[in-house]
Amino acid sequence: MTRSPSSADIQSMLDDSPYIAFMNLEVTGVDPDGPAITIRMPMRPEFERRAGTGQYHGGAIAALIDIAGDYAVVLQSGGGVPTINFRVDYLRPATNTALTATATARRIGRTVAVVDIDVHDDAGRLCAVGRGTYSPNVG
Amino acid sequence: MTRSPSSADIQSMLDDSPYIAFMNLEVTGVDPDGPAITIRMPMRPEFERRAGTGQYHGGAIAALIDIAGDYAVVLQSGGGVPTINFRVDYLRPATNTALTATATARRIGRTVAVVDIDVHDDAGRLCAVGRGTYSPNVG
Amino acid sequence: MTRSPSSADIQSMLDDSPYIAFMNLEVTGVDPDGPAITIRMPMRPEFERRAGTGQYHGGAIAALIDIAGDYAVVLQSGGGVPTINFRVDYLRPATNTALTATATARRIGRTVAVVDIDVHDDAGRLCAVGRGTYSPNVG
Amino acid sequence: MTRSPSSADIQSMLDDSPYIAFMNLEVTGVDPDGPAITIRMPMRPEFERRAGTGQYHGGAIAALIDIAGDYAVVLQSGGGVPTINFRVDYLRPATNTALTATATARRIGRTVAVVDIDVHDDAGRLCAVGRGTYSPNVG
Repeated sequence: MTRSPSSADIQSMLDDSPYIAFMNLEVTGVDPDGPAITIRMPMRPEFERRAGTGQYHGGAIAALIDIAGDYAVVLQSGGGVPTINFRVDYLRPATNTALTATATARRIGRTVAVVDIDVHDDAGRLCAVGRGTYSPNVG
Repeated sequence: MTRSPSSADIQSMLDDSPYIAFMNLEVTGVDPDGPAITIRMPMRPEFERRAGTGQYHGGAIAALIDIAGDYAVVLQSGGGVPTINFRVDYLRPATNTALTATATARRIGRTVAVVDIDVHDDAGRLCAVGRGTYSPNVG
Repeated sequence: MTRSPSSADIQSMLDDSPYIAFMNLEVTGVDPDGPAITIRMPMRPEFERRAGTGQYHGGAIAALIDIAGDYAVVLQSGGGVPTINFRVDYLRPATNTALTATATARRIGRTVAVVDIDVHDDAGRLCAVGRGTYSPNVG
Repeated sequence: MTRSPSSADIQSMLDDSPYIAFMNLEVTGVDPDGPAITIRMPMRPEFERRAGTGQYHGGAIAALIDIAGDYAVVLQSGGGVPTINFRVDYLRPATNTALTATATARRIGRTVAVVDIDVHDDAGRLCAVGRGTYSPNVG
């Protein structure tokens, strides 16, 4: 690949996926040198864990983490990257806020990439952390 | 609590959550002695990872795993149980199929419960495995 | 490879590693069809987490889990297999007992193998569970 | 507790554990405000994964990660802290070098603490990363 995908390139890839399009994600920053990516997820009614609480269900946060980690690797690989596995730790409830995931590659090897993902609310509180492994050579 | 929740009780709790209701999950079995629970998730267009592939996005599978693990603990605790963390390993793509998650508690301690979750497709192939920890005394 | 390694083959590989030899592990069963392997670790003074407690430090249990998972894959690959990552959940203290790890492959794919490892004490209590991913084609 | 344990306090706790004393760990820095701790582990013959390679077995690295994460929490709790679970990702072989683990708490809640642990070799290369959860109120 001659250049790293731009924010607009990544946004277009996200919007092409029915699952991700439904989640309504917005790329808010890319750093090809990390590689690192920042993705924002606004609240939507279908994300609420209990009606009227304004709190995200953890499943939506886990999906955001998986996707952000994935696209940090795409910044270097240029194309789709299967997830091998990932882990999510929930630190605080996220209530009446959008969420911003910052994914930073810790190592992109020949067969495995490891990415850390931090999820903050609009007040800058760390709500969840993720760590994922991806297959950079497949897909 | 005087008795373990029935399938109908759990189904009602699932349907009360906007996030889970959108996922359209169906309780297909409960075993209070495991405790263990089986939950089925039919495909829906918003779960597709790429249009026309019929493949689930991993985010939907991760959410199913988190929820199934959670409700295996609810069978014993009787009420909502926060997730501490969980891990998902993807084993095979899941294509043009419903998914069935079987969650079995490995240990429910005073402050931490550990649950294993296996996800099979309609042909009985193991597509993903999860392992989660939950706080049985909170919530 | 024409045949799966025998118990004696695996025992010999274990004893060749200075780290594993120090841990004094004993292969007590292999099942090439799992593939699955059972490895026993007797207590030794250097494993104690606090003097006089008879309790294993979690680090020794984690190492046992990593090794048992690894050799479940070796049963199929025939040779050394790098660990990509693993997770350990501690369920109960293990006191004045040997430990037995049973590692069962859940899936051995082309580039990633996923293995579950259960650790029991001599009374049959489940003390810890592990889940690891390994690179079957490298090493 | 009136003050956070000093480096010397932590070193003394480490040396009191037969398992940790065998590993020969040295506290090289503490930051009560992180809380964060840095622990150095010199190579020793029993850590070698294969004779003559000078490479650490992953089990020794996993144990270092568990311990460093634990003692980052001890900086705040003042006393022993059981590990709930942890994950290790191996990024590069560590060869003919000491290893330095830097553990930083991401969140210390009432019932769960989450800690990140980075392991570098003497040349500053990141060899492994860990993430663990601990029970700050028990022990």
